[in-house]
Amino acid sequence: MNAIKDHAFASDNNSGIHPEILAAIARANRGHVIAYGDDPYTRKAEDTLRNTFGREAEPFFVLTGTGANVLGLASLLQPYHAVICAESAHINVDECGAPERFCNCKLLPVNTTDGKLNPDNILQQLQGFGFEHHVQPKVISISQPTEMGTVYTRDEIESISQLAKKHDLYLHVDGARLANAAVRLNLEFKAFTKDAGIDVLSFGGTKNGMLFGESVIFFRKELAEHFRYIRKQGMQLASKMRFIAIQFDTYITQKIWKANASHANEMAQILYKETEQIPEIQVTQKVETNGIFARIPRKIIAPLQKEYFFYVWDEATNEVRWMTSYDTQPEDIEDFTHFIKELIHQ
Amino acid sequence: MNAIKDHAFASDNNSGIHPEILAAIARANRGHVIAYGDDPYTRKAEDTLRNTFGREAEPFFVLTGTGANVLGLASLLQPYHAVICAESAHINVDECGAPERFCNCKLLPVNTTDGKLNPDNILQQLQGFGFEHHVQPKVISISQPTEMGTVYTRDEIESISQLAKKHDLYLHVDGARLANAAVRLNLEFKAFTKDAGIDVLSFGGTKNGMLFGESVIFFRKELAEHFRYIRKQGMQLASKMRFIAIQFDTYITQKIWKANASHANEMAQILYKETEQIPEIQVTQKVETNGIFARIPRKIIAPLQKEYFFYVWDEATNEVRWMTSYDTQPEDIEDFTHFIKELIHQ
Amino acid sequence: MNAIKDHAFASDNNSGIHPEILAAIARANRGHVIAYGDDPYTRKAEDTLRNTFGREAEPFFVLTGTGANVLGLASLLQPYHAVICAESAHINVDECGAPERFCNCKLLPVNTTDGKLNPDNILQQLQGFGFEHHVQPKVISISQPTEMGTVYTRDEIESISQLAKKHDLYLHVDGARLANAAVRLNLEFKAFTKDAGIDVLSFGGTKNGMLFGESVIFFRKELAEHFRYIRKQGMQLASKMRFIAIQFDTYITQKIWKANASHANEMAQILYKETEQIPEIQVTQKVETNGIFARIPRKIIAPLQKEYFFYVWDEATNEVRWMTSYDTQPEDIEDFTHFIKELIHQ
Amino acid sequence: MNAIKDHAFASDNNSGIHPEILAAIARANRGHVIAYGDDPYTRKAEDTLRNTFGREAEPFFVLTGTGANVLGLASLLQPYHAVICAESAHINVDECGAPERFCNCKLLPVNTTDGKLNPDNILQQLQGFGFEHHVQPKVISISQPTEMGTVYTRDEIESISQLAKKHDLYLHVDGARLANAAVRLNLEFKAFTKDAGIDVLSFGGTKNGMLFGESVIFFRKELAEHFRYIRKQGMQLASKMRFIAIQFDTYITQKIWKANASHANEMAQILYKETEQIPEIQVTQKVETNGIFARIPRKIIAPLQKEYFFYVWDEATNEVRWMTSYDTQPEDIEDFTHFIKELIHQ
Repeated sequence: MNAIKDHAFASDNNSGIHPEILAAIARANRGHVIAYGDDPYTRKAEDTLRNTFGREAEPFFVLTGTGANVLGLASLLQPYHAVICAESAHINVDECGAPERFCNCKLLPVNTTDGKLNPDNILQQLQGFGFEHHVQPKVISISQPTEMGTVYTRDEIESISQLAKKHDLYLHVDGARLANAAVRLNLEFKAFTKDAGIDVLSFGGTKNGMLFGESVIFFRKELAEHFRYIRKQGMQLASKMRFIAIQFDTYITQKIWKANASHANEMAQILYKETEQIPEIQVTQKVETNGIFARIPRKIIAPLQKEYFFYVWDEATNEVRWMTSYDTQPEDIEDFTHFIKELIHQ
Repeated sequence: MNAIKDHAFASDNNSGIHPEILAAIARANRGHVIAYGDDPYTRKAEDTLRNTFGREAEPFFVLTGTGANVLGLASLLQPYHAVICAESAHINVDECGAPERFCNCKLLPVNTTDGKLNPDNILQQLQGFGFEHHVQPKVISISQPTEMGTVYTRDEIESISQLAKKHDLYLHVDGARLANAAVRLNLEFKAFTKDAGIDVLSFGGTKNGMLFGESVIFFRKELAEHFRYIRKQGMQLASKMRFIAIQFDTYITQKIWKANASHANEMAQILYKETEQIPEIQVTQKVETNGIFARIPRKIIAPLQKEYFFYVWDEATNEVRWMTSYDTQPEDIEDFTHFIKELIHQ
Repeated sequence: MNAIKDHAFASDNNSGIHPEILAAIARANRGHVIAYGDDPYTRKAEDTLRNTFGREAEPFFVLTGTGANVLGLASLLQPYHAVICAESAHINVDECGAPERFCNCKLLPVNTTDGKLNPDNILQQLQGFGFEHHVQPKVISISQPTEMGTVYTRDEIESISQLAKKHDLYLHVDGARLANAAVRLNLEFKAFTKDAGIDVLSFGGTKNGMLFGESVIFFRKELAEHFRYIRKQGMQLASKMRFIAIQFDTYITQKIWKANASHANEMAQILYKETEQIPEIQVTQKVETNGIFARIPRKIIAPLQKEYFFYVWDEATNEVRWMTSYDTQPEDIEDFTHFIKELIHQ
Repeated sequence: MNAIKDHAFASDNNSGIHPEILAAIARANRGHVIAYGDDPYTRKAEDTLRNTFGREAEPFFVLTGTGANVLGLASLLQPYHAVICAESAHINVDECGAPERFCNCKLLPVNTTDGKLNPDNILQQLQGFGFEHHVQPKVISISQPTEMGTVYTRDEIESISQLAKKHDLYLHVDGARLANAAVRLNLEFKAFTKDAGIDVLSFGGTKNGMLFGESVIFFRKELAEHFRYIRKQGMQLASKMRFIAIQFDTYITQKIWKANASHANEMAQILYKETEQIPEIQVTQKVETNGIFARIPRKIIAPLQKEYFFYVWDEATNEVRWMTSYDTQPEDIEDFTHFIKELIHQ
């Protein structure tokens, strides 16, 4: 078990529940409602998501981000299909093979420097169509923002979507931190998801102030037709569904997503400005959302982790990842960067 | 969406969160802790479970009851193995094939009248050992209490456990409502689980006052060795784990499990006494926990469901299931049975 | 390893290759042809099967009977689907869980006395439609002839097919010994397969004189659309396909199927007549193809197996299975029944 | 369907059955033997393989090369494990995702230029141990010879084996063309398999003169313990096993493997010498077995394929693959290279 500051930079998953979200859960805690989603809270939250993502959107609530990604993909895939994704994608490196186990499918990784696919680098895996010895590419999956914190513009998504359509592929988006991308792009959610040609979206909230629960949103009704069986068989059907639903409803209608993601992104900019002034530190990725990737002196990694636990991204190059959160405070950053400088100059 | 009374008899899953559980979640909501279980709340809750179930117990938190069952089984099984279970078992009829999908294994159903396996009826499926054309039985899985609300005595469990050991099989228990069985048996949890020879237990709390979260408890350390990979790959690793942990810790240490299950069981006895006096109703199973199974006049099913939604267990025989809950009130039962009599005499 | 007479009654799988089949393989062994089925022998055999089973038939060659069954089913199923079959079906008891492993699906077994499904007994498993907690029945699978050697009439198949269509299910047939049924029914293959409403057929030949290789025949083109990927991913794509193809072509065009199955069925009738006269033996199933099921005195089982290896079907009742083959000789039966009588009277 | 010369250069899979192999099949075609491998031919062939690969070797016969690879891997893997292999490995690009489907596992591809892994390039994927979000590497799989026709020396295999042991991984070898490597290395099979530290081997013969059938050979008895269930569940258990066994027995004892592979390798050298003299052709890989990889003028690809079908390995660079076979004749090469020159100079 790692010691940790009350506000550290390891992960936005380390933060707690936003007070308004917790208050909403308490409000929904009265009397009986039918379990497994056949209740008024769930209906209301689904309507809220349809108002946000478009009338044809078909939202479903699940339990984890991995669950959202894997079940969303499962609804698009036969076992002989394959998913083209960035080598760094969460589905490829951080889900312990859950996509392969549950979908029985192959992932086709694409090497990138910034975690972003594009119509050119996708081509290295867009092959083998009609050849029975080769898996058949069927889904392109991107992360928005990427695991490196970079953000796809609406145009970039559209160009990938067009490529997907041309080859009869689906476009899936891992949006575990979609709010941070929306703030960065200064766009409505719908504008860079449904309107940009996305077919299925994992829309997360846990990393941005929710207690638990994620959602899978289908932008074409026919893709959602059998999802409730996939969700149950995928062990992702919550019995007391109302308590996920009320969180999403509150998250959207009270614009908690926006306040929280804006704050986290701003904190990342402050942290970025502080650290880029330290000559011993090289920031390695554009800081577009709430993550900072940086190469730091090897000698400070262990003592810094001891006070502020965080993950080393690449052992070979001393590249680390720092994440800001909706509850990061400017003074947390001040203390942190102060301590970094101390360690460097020891 | 079905209308529902504030306190109906459809399912203990339809009730909300016990106030002390919700208060505990709020208490755990301060500052950052490491995600995915590497935090003090989780350590504390694990200790509490070890104090309850025995020092060698290895507890893990997951998200749903289906998840607890399937991942617990997955840790015991190779794909050519099979699970012997009652035909009526939750894993066999209520999990949409999740065990088959995730474990790739076959279930071998045993016909029973009361949902209970025993060394005799297990024999019908305890075969094919060493024959490569036949799946190899490897796990016996029982539900305690059963899906019919009946309870295994400690001796009954031991007799199954001995059979299992004799044939080199594991004994798995689906304990989604284990608290209700403990109250009925008037035994400590450990006495009729670990001490009775159980290898792996799904220990649930959501049906008895928790918000979400279940646990898988291994009674032999070597069975737990790789479970964290199975849990992550099974999409059942919660990021903000502390909020499941604090629920279980509170559930046990504040004896909420006992108060809630005792109340629910008592309410079932009241409901049983009320309904068995109605000559048009035949109770079909022993009422040992919080469920009542009864054949009722066909004509009253629809109008009764309209006011008090519940599930029909067997369409052919007009057998229905009514569940009491930790928050069922005597006046709910009075109103309910009053309405039943009205409908019968209309 | 079991000793065995040159012509025993254990299984039609124990016989060798019909001489004309082996001669055909030798004829196809000249020069190079494209591997994996893109060759003239395969085209010719496919045409032959289309001439036999109907113009719309889409035949594919695979390697084993289990492969034919499992891959045929896989082409019809999503993991949340289920297959209704007789409890005694080969897919349920003799394939070591291959359907569950490869299709990730549940089988829903129906108890029968003679291995035959019908619109009545199917109803016990034809349920749960639209209920997300329950697997969704999608395929009815029958064996023709059954594992008990009994045969469905054309009308019986049609009645099942109509039930299947009514509920939007597919009808799959395990025809590992289809030739024996055709002879018994005295019908063309097409009359009791395609014309009776079957969707997918496993059409075997190995038990009736072929060396190896089975076929999967789709009676609706759209069901076959992706089968070549399923076959390759299912490890059932033979490289030197011509040598399976030439066997099927010869089997059909030279009517080897008919000569061999007629002979085997006749031998079964002779064996039946001989054994039914022995008062200590009770034949338990109608003898309609090439299998005899009989209860025999326990004391003779071991010594009889020692000379003529065969399988005990039900240990509890001393029921055994004897199979005749295309190469069984009347004198083999004479010797066998003579020896049985000797053992009984010892 | 592609037209093809009687002896072309598309694949060694396009050739037929070696006459002595076919004669052996005919010899085994007498009387009944127990199906599924419990017969004297199979025992004899197993002994022959043990004499060849070492007393502790546990050989099993299966049906296809993909089956041999996938089932061999399945016996080593849990679903949360991963297989490190060359990006170009057959299991990674030519098996339509069969390993992922049947083993439920992830493959971790390593980029190479010549298809060969080594202790350095393996490191890029040898990571994530003990981290529950990451699949756990458990097997290193190499192809001997590689898909590029290159051969690992005994020392090279040992260095990989040592790395595997150090990290508690298994070493698997895809030996679909192992005979060609043995001839190149001028070593007994055992010397560069068991003695070099290999754990499980796919040992093929179909590409070198057999009709069908492959084998999986375990070099540690405990790894083979449950393989017969995996084989049956994997749809790779042949009923008339004797006809695979007799092929392997004859292949080894009559040294057909050596005669055929030596001839094919020699033919590749002749073809190499002929083509390297053509200035418009660049051979891209060392010619160590029976494959030639070469960049050829784009304009000649289509007309050359029309007469002599072959596969384009890399569309982008006009790299093609030509394979020689046990039945390739010097005059075939003469005709082929003559035609190439004609096409170039047209």
